[in-house]
Amino acid sequence: MKEHDLRVAGFVFGAVKSGIRGKDRLDLALIACSTPATAAAVFTTSQVKAAPVLLGIERIKSGLAQAILVNSGIANACTGEEGMVKARGAAAAAALALGIDEELVQVSSTGVIGQQLEMSCFDHLPRLVESLGPDQAMDVARAMMTTDTVPKTAVRRLSINGSPLTILGMTKGAGMIQPNMATMLAYLMTDAAVSSPVLQQILAKGVDQSFNKITVDGDTSTNDTVLLLASGKAGNQEINDPNSTEAALLQEAINDLTRDLALQIVADGEGATKLVAILVEGARSDHEAELAARTVANSPLVKTAFFGQDANWGRIIAALGRSGIAFEQTAVDILFDEAKIVGNGLWLGTEAEQKATAVLQKKAFSVVIHLHQGPGTCTIFTCDLSIDYVKINADYRS
Amino acid sequence: MKEHDLRVAGFVFGAVKSGIRGKDRLDLALIACSTPATAAAVFTTSQVKAAPVLLGIERIKSGLAQAILVNSGIANACTGEEGMVKARGAAAAAALALGIDEELVQVSSTGVIGQQLEMSCFDHLPRLVESLGPDQAMDVARAMMTTDTVPKTAVRRLSINGSPLTILGMTKGAGMIQPNMATMLAYLMTDAAVSSPVLQQILAKGVDQSFNKITVDGDTSTNDTVLLLASGKAGNQEINDPNSTEAALLQEAINDLTRDLALQIVADGEGATKLVAILVEGARSDHEAELAARTVANSPLVKTAFFGQDANWGRIIAALGRSGIAFEQTAVDILFDEAKIVGNGLWLGTEAEQKATAVLQKKAFSVVIHLHQGPGTCTIFTCDLSIDYVKINADYRS
Repeated sequence: MKEHDLRVAGFVFGAVKSGIRGKDRLDLALIACSTPATAAAVFTTSQVKAAPVLLGIERIKSGLAQAILVNSGIANACTGEEGMVKARGAAAAAALALGIDEELVQVSSTGVIGQQLEMSCFDHLPRLVESLGPDQAMDVARAMMTTDTVPKTAVRRLSINGSPLTILGMTKGAGMIQPNMATMLAYLMTDAAVSSPVLQQILAKGVDQSFNKITVDGDTSTNDTVLLLASGKAGNQEINDPNSTEAALLQEAINDLTRDLALQIVADGEGATKLVAILVEGARSDHEAELAARTVANSPLVKTAFFGQDANWGRIIAALGRSGIAFEQTAVDILFDEAKIVGNGLWLGTEAEQKATAVLQKKAFSVVIHLHQGPGTCTIFTCDLSIDYVKINADYRS
Repeated sequence: MKEHDLRVAGFVFGAVKSGIRGKDRLDLALIACSTPATAAAVFTTSQVKAAPVLLGIERIKSGLAQAILVNSGIANACTGEEGMVKARGAAAAAALALGIDEELVQVSSTGVIGQQLEMSCFDHLPRLVESLGPDQAMDVARAMMTTDTVPKTAVRRLSINGSPLTILGMTKGAGMIQPNMATMLAYLMTDAAVSSPVLQQILAKGVDQSFNKITVDGDTSTNDTVLLLASGKAGNQEINDPNSTEAALLQEAINDLTRDLALQIVADGEGATKLVAILVEGARSDHEAELAARTVANSPLVKTAFFGQDANWGRIIAALGRSGIAFEQTAVDILFDEAKIVGNGLWLGTEAEQKATAVLQKKAFSVVIHLHQGPGTCTIFTCDLSIDYVKINADYRS
């Protein structure tokens, strides 16, 4: 993708090497809008919230934001009062350099938990503001990276009542939480004109079917943040009815974009060699389907079998058994993509197993579980548990 | 331990190579009592229960048992009606060879899920019965092993009202469930005279503070079984009051024995190099303490940090944050053994970290988490997540 493809009307981007992560690494980035944008956000559900998350929750209540300042290297989590002062200070410095209201600056941090930021890194803000431009979105995506191996961006274009709209998304994250270099962050920018309540509803729905349906290791970060800013520069009539066709079209595009970004995260999961969709169908409810799918998706035994390319349905059925949902084991069917290996709870034999084993050699595949108990369905995306996952996470600080 | 140390009055033991696991491996074993013993049992909570577990649940209702037949190599789980017929058939063959009531035979299986047992292996039962003797308990412990690297036994002796009593325990299990060679099994034999309701209550309490407080990978087997048989040969007056001093003494010994066996399982966890006790104190309730301790004990990020000998308290506090319990992060203290690394939610500095890091180099240590929210406590025993765990579980069937 050419970098000029990432332009969105109203937004400028930039990143610098501020020294948090040494001399040669982009680690401080800024996204700014030429005027206050309507804004929506979803933050971590963890009881332990990093300072920038606490600040973000407070500021998003206005439904407006004009800039996002993000650093990698230090998470500013478990940093007490000093951490809050520094998050506010960073936002104030960015606001000053941009000449905007400090309440309109959102701050994110990702990195080592428990360490304090050095405020001197924010001395680079005037230089960062000077460098801002419409074509540098990829630099921001790079500056956010921690254990990620690739920057992650996606663009969707649509037309609403004749107005062409663009949505740009960027994300980072390679585990639900990484060791010290933590967190999933995602920023979405659109030139659509949307009221902030509708924007919040669309974002919440989009996140629920994308970032909330992936797992690398079952861990949740202290810093997880998804922000959506809408500049209104596309010239469409403001979307302010959540039940309108226009809102539905935007929802569809946001769903598609966030799903794309979420799958990029799983595919780049720490040490991952496989991207696997766990589809549970026929549970008594969607809630039970999700419990079952998550238990399978997070089972270390299932995930090591994926890594070993072993169609080990016994581990899948054992994970279902302990998931806490109600079902009849004699009703269970299991398929790897189209290859059915279990019917009515029983193994279908050597030939079925061979076909299933062939599926596991692919880089991406589905596990389809039919419970035949009711209408509940859920899909969770996961990756395998590899030797490299252990190496990455055991060696991180050593 | 010398093998004659494993004698318990009333019980005989034996094991043979029946061919399930090839020619050179003990894989079929029998424990028999000279008369019907009072019996108690705890079985897997999984929704998916293996055939021998379904049979065992039915038969333990009598409060009596006289023999335990166990095979390794095949789990007889997800085997449908045919599996049930085979479990009953194996019990009937053992009863015939022993000349006892078939309803008094308990059967256990551990191994590959979804494969059917060949009934021909039970042709070895007459030979197995002939070989039974009081000194071969260790052979049973060996025949039960799957991915275990060592047989696991323990003995406790006590005196109740002048009668010397013995309790022998043996167990297998190296993950909560292993790949295909599955399951935790434990058999306890005592010569005490105890009524079956009291025996059941004592066993349930013992299991709750031992086998139910360990985790290797968070997975639960389809076949987990703990059986306790009491022959009554010690000559003590039957213990039939659960609130008596005698019951309390027996409870204490069972608690101690089952805790010993449970820790042997964790220490022999698949690929484990560390045995770690996670102590949560000061939660609002014991239930919340258990939720918190289990979340920390099963976090792949925490477990890989143990493997890497990294005092990574940030991963511990992040696991607490997503555990679903209520607490103030500014009240949290974390220690590795005696070395305090976090006080009031904040890192205590380089010197504290060095002391904590030294603790992680030990083979066994504790993580102590004080929440300061109330009276709730819980201890969960876990192990690290190593490169060998992934290798063992990825390569099992290949």
